[in-house]
Amino acid sequence: MATPPSPAPEPLGPGEPVLAVDVGGTDMKAALVDASGRLVEVLRRPTPLDGDRTGEAVVEAVARLADGFRDRHPDVTPAAAGLLVPGHVDDDAGVGVFAENLGWRDFPFRDRAEAALHLPVSFSHDVRGAGEAEHRLGAAAPYRDVVVMAIGTGIAGAVFIDGRLYTGGGMAGEMGHSRVADGPRCACGGIGCLEAVASAAAIARRYNARTGASLPGAREVLERAEAGDPDARAVWDSALDALALDLSHTVALLAPEAIVIGGGLAQAGPALFEPLRERLDGILTFHRRPALLPASIGENAGLIGAALRARDLLGAPAVQAAS
Amino acid sequence: MATPPSPAPEPLGPGEPVLAVDVGGTDMKAALVDASGRLVEVLRRPTPLDGDRTGEAVVEAVARLADGFRDRHPDVTPAAAGLLVPGHVDDDAGVGVFAENLGWRDFPFRDRAEAALHLPVSFSHDVRGAGEAEHRLGAAAPYRDVVVMAIGTGIAGAVFIDGRLYTGGGMAGEMGHSRVADGPRCACGGIGCLEAVASAAAIARRYNARTGASLPGAREVLERAEAGDPDARAVWDSALDALALDLSHTVALLAPEAIVIGGGLAQAGPALFEPLRERLDGILTFHRRPALLPASIGENAGLIGAALRARDLLGAPAVQAAS
Repeated sequence: MATPPSPAPEPLGPGEPVLAVDVGGTDMKAALVDASGRLVEVLRRPTPLDGDRTGEAVVEAVARLADGFRDRHPDVTPAAAGLLVPGHVDDDAGVGVFAENLGWRDFPFRDRAEAALHLPVSFSHDVRGAGEAEHRLGAAAPYRDVVVMAIGTGIAGAVFIDGRLYTGGGMAGEMGHSRVADGPRCACGGIGCLEAVASAAAIARRYNARTGASLPGAREVLERAEAGDPDARAVWDSALDALALDLSHTVALLAPEAIVIGGGLAQAGPALFEPLRERLDGILTFHRRPALLPASIGENAGLIGAALRARDLLGAPAVQAAS
Repeated sequence: MATPPSPAPEPLGPGEPVLAVDVGGTDMKAALVDASGRLVEVLRRPTPLDGDRTGEAVVEAVARLADGFRDRHPDVTPAAAGLLVPGHVDDDAGVGVFAENLGWRDFPFRDRAEAALHLPVSFSHDVRGAGEAEHRLGAAAPYRDVVVMAIGTGIAGAVFIDGRLYTGGGMAGEMGHSRVADGPRCACGGIGCLEAVASAAAIARRYNARTGASLPGAREVLERAEAGDPDARAVWDSALDALALDLSHTVALLAPEAIVIGGGLAQAGPALFEPLRERLDGILTFHRRPALLPASIGENAGLIGAALRARDLLGAPAVQAAS
């Protein structure tokens, strides 16, 4: 199924045409980007789960998507590709080290994708890619020291220090797996991880477990909380407490100028940001208060980040964050 | 009172002669460093506390110490000075923003010290200065992504990212003021700050409050814990739990290659590092395990860091961490 190009102004701007791919745990998205920076076509496909062949299957799917773009848009010839996947990703080595539920182990995504696409490929982590889009073109652009968090099925972040993405060997930004409570057990094996308490998925799961309901997501839990359901209120409030506690640790250690939050939970808008700001302020004392901002690029941030990274490979003058 | 130069090999190495000053909440230390890198003389004085004139009084004391060095060592003429103070320090602006119990507010230490000493002055935070010594010459030298923590009266750290000190506008590394427990109240106004639970001073204070004893420090609490005192054991164990929890947050967010711990508490050696490593390992799951190492420069790390920074001003080829 093809989705129409976003009606929002395309933030990429002119540059080389590129291919952008953002692989998630459930779906993968691909976009063909033309020389004006427009996402000519955006496709979404189920991520091909195939046990320990999943890495190969993903690369094959990317190649098929590229073939389709070429057939339908012969006038747009990508000069490079950007590929993002979740999990533990070693950007420098071009390797997908590990991803929960996705089967690969040390899979050389960059080399395999370059061979399949006959294009230079920039390979990174999905949250870091989306973070780069926010940092170069979105809400994080005014800041040199800034953390961009994605709160959806999971929780992770991209850390920018002195204007540059910091990857920590591919392992930085895993604040979703910081212990913030005595429970519940997290899929990673840890206890009380932020992600197990406060991700959009965890909020729905915890409410359903508590009440026997089967709400599909955090949005519905928030609606019930706002309608006066005490269980929903307790779950939502405890998620806010956990998020604020984690943010306070980030502030104490890094003192970022801003923390930008995207992902599904950020759709809650002021119902998330206002109480979160208040709780964070209640924990901090002398610390530097970060601006707490919603991400601004929207659901295609990963694709835009992948496109930026692909263009970087071509030596085009990249859009840089303000200094 | 003059203390003899450290019998340990001097790590600084050849360079310009400089003056190094490390101001603490109780004492200040000053050293004259000669061209061979030897600490020719190390002096310790009570920090002159004089209400909101404390900044001026510190600079006056530094000038007097420099005069004394000149009289006694006319053959060693410093070409620059390094000055470190505690609290919130804006390295770039050269300003001591605030320090608990030390009276100053936005005091222009660098400018005042340059005027008083007639020398160029490098100004920074005491823990960052000691961290730079560890990062260039000590236990942190093999690492590009490393956190150097000092655990003594307080708890703070120096964060090195991609081989460079990150200051966060002078506010990074304040993990001592991360909430890790429901109490006690911290001097900063926060609740359950790491520093209020696990600093050397807090360990003694908490044990004394619990038992009515009046032990002078954490060392004596550890001795009692090892001798089977259940109160001492409970206090020591809860400090280890708090430290491990905080380290786990640092690991999740930054994935440093190593965490180096200095300050008074690190004197406990294996009694600190072994259970801390075990607890940290018990919290982490897929995360990158940092090396957990004792600082190696010793009690003069601040002076050595101040001397390194002073030499940096002179454009001498600075000793750099391994890449």
